[in-house]
This record gives sequence, C-alpha cells and structure tokens, in this order.
Amino acid sequence: MSQQYQCRIYVTLRPSVLDPAGTAVESGLKQLGYEGVERVRIGKYIELNLTAKDEIEAEKQLHEMCDRLLANPVIENYCFEMTPVHATQVCGG
Amino acid sequence: MSQQYQCRIYVTLRPSVLDPAGTAVESGLKQLGYEGVERVRIGKYIELNLTAKDEIEAEKQLHEMCDRLLANPVIENYCFEMTPVHATQVCGG
Repeated sequence: MSQQYQCRIYVTLRPSVLDPAGTAVESGLKQLGYEGVERVRIGKYIELNLTAKDEIEAEKQLHEMCDRLLANPVIENYCFEMTPVHATQVCGG
Repeated sequence: MSQQYQCRIYVTLRPSVLDPAGTAVESGLKQLGYEGVERVRIGKYIELNLTAKDEIEAEKQLHEMCDRLLANPVIENYCFEMTPVHATQVCGG
C-alpha cells in the first residue's frame, strides 16, 4: 500500500553566495525603522504532497527532485521535512 | 539588555489564490517521472537576525515587518519561528 506524505522543502542560497534580494529587503526594513535587523537571506519554501510506497522511497524521490529541479546545487542548499498524511476512510453499507 | 533572535519566516499564498509557479513546477516534476506529486505550492522562506529587548518586542516587530513588507496580506499568509542566539562573551583582563 502506498502512503501520502506532506512535504515542506526549504531552498536557501549557500552562505558564500551573495543575496541581492536579501540585501534589498534588509535595507527596506531598516528604512521602515527596524534597525535591529541583520543578515536577511531570502530562499524558497515549497510545499507538496507526495505519494510513495514508503518513507525511504519518498525521501529518495525528494532528494532527486531537489537535485534535478527544485534547487540549483551549485548555489543553493536544501532541506526538507515529511509528515505522513493520515487519511481515514470510513465505508458504511 | 537586548537579545538577538534568529528568525525564520514562511510566506505562502493563501489557499484560495492560484499559484501558476507551483503548477509549472508540478508539471515539470511529473514530466521527470515523479507521478506521485500533487498540490505543489511555492512560497518564500526568509531568514534574518533581529535584535530586540525581549521576545515580546521581537515578535511584535516581526508581525509588523511581515504585514508591511515581507508578505502581501491580501494574497499571502505568513508564519515565523524565533530562536534566541546565545552569544557567549568572555572578557579577560
């Protein structure tokens, strides 16, 4: 039987890569008066549902998806979390 | 004394708002052979360090920053996490 997982994937720029969007947001926040803000970095947050036969297979597929499409391994890191979706099916008759 | 917090902010489109980027990524993943993928939604993940006098003040500032700049309240939801940065300062003499 296959299981559905709710996955949350975080893609961030590697620390050594410049983040001009983050710098712009930091400057915007400071202009709004939030002087205590530092080191703003902007990444992507991806949610998806994945059906796979087990957790090991789901994890393998997620790693592949990140490496092939969701993240650019040259400049980005990623991490993800998975939660099994517990579907309850009640059939009356 | 003020305290520094490491903040992680997740900005997601409201469920009722269409996500064309998510749809494109879902279709791309399916073309790569990941048939079990569904409901892809793409959001923003923002990391920043915030110095504030206490946790209540930091939380208040973060809510304001999200409402005013980081998220568009009309079409986006946000949530955030804060972790105090424990800086150890040792002064020898």
